[in-house]
Amino acid sequence: MSTDVKYAIQDVYPDDFSWCYGCGRLNEKGHHFRTGWGGDKTVTIYTPKAEHTAIPGFVYGGLLASLIDCHGTGSASLALHKKNGYMPEDGVEAPRFVTASLQVNYKKPTPQGHSLKAVGTIEELHPKKYKVHIEVFSGEICCATGEVVAVKMPESFGQSS
Amino acid sequence: MSTDVKYAIQDVYPDDFSWCYGCGRLNEKGHHFRTGWGGDKTVTIYTPKAEHTAIPGFVYGGLLASLIDCHGTGSASLALHKKNGYMPEDGVEAPRFVTASLQVNYKKPTPQGHSLKAVGTIEELHPKKYKVHIEVFSGEICCATGEVVAVKMPESFGQSS
Repeated sequence: MSTDVKYAIQDVYPDDFSWCYGCGRLNEKGHHFRTGWGGDKTVTIYTPKAEHTAIPGFVYGGLLASLIDCHGTGSASLALHKKNGYMPEDGVEAPRFVTASLQVNYKKPTPQGHSLKAVGTIEELHPKKYKVHIEVFSGEICCATGEVVAVKMPESFGQSS
Repeated sequence: MSTDVKYAIQDVYPDDFSWCYGCGRLNEKGHHFRTGWGGDKTVTIYTPKAEHTAIPGFVYGGLLASLIDCHGTGSASLALHKKNGYMPEDGVEAPRFVTASLQVNYKKPTPQGHSLKAVGTIEELHPKKYKVHIEVFSGEICCATGEVVAVKMPESFGQSS
């Protein structure tokens, strides 16, 4: 299993939108999930910390949900950026997506102390809306699956509630 | 809005199963979500930390997913414990549930700096399996909804993968 994502879409998110606790490169306390292309799939690799426990020895489900969430928005951003002609390594600011819905199925207890690999398959629902089908592996074992519907962040995001 | 849950089911989880990053009272670095009865609904109240950011000013969706996750398993535990004749304040060890599936719909950007209140409605699918329908409020505004299917932790949990 590869242990790193060389060119991540989060590296080219606009600074103002790079504070996400899951994947923002500027959030010092966050997870720093990084999502890149792996062929026509998308990949995020992360090793949970010791405190990310469900019961001792196994990974917290909320951490898996967080990984799936940010992997979903990152995958959608990768897809639209590619459609616009860019790869993360081009250094061009990428579009930012937000999660409309998140679904997670926990298949197997996920052992701690190992890196996890989220693999995404992208489905375009609309030019500004993607569904990402995600599998999370520990070694060869698929521990969780999920789906994220990600929508391009509206210009008005956060300006009204 | 009330600001505390007096008697939480997590207070009577067995010690060995109280290390959850979301809701384990023994996990020093965790969120310490606490879930109790509010009439025939279940309630968890939590104020996200400054670092739990999506974009500045708004709460990270993965944190909301974590809140919904642990609120779901806590609600299922409350329900079965009550069926067995106990309330959290009785000091009797409660059954522990694990999440089979988690679904979250993000309805509105969730402002930071305010307490969140998760409210659960419990549906018994089977004596060992519950579906919990959850709404997360910031003040009067429902920011997210979700569903958790929680299954009583098998004796063999974690013993094989």
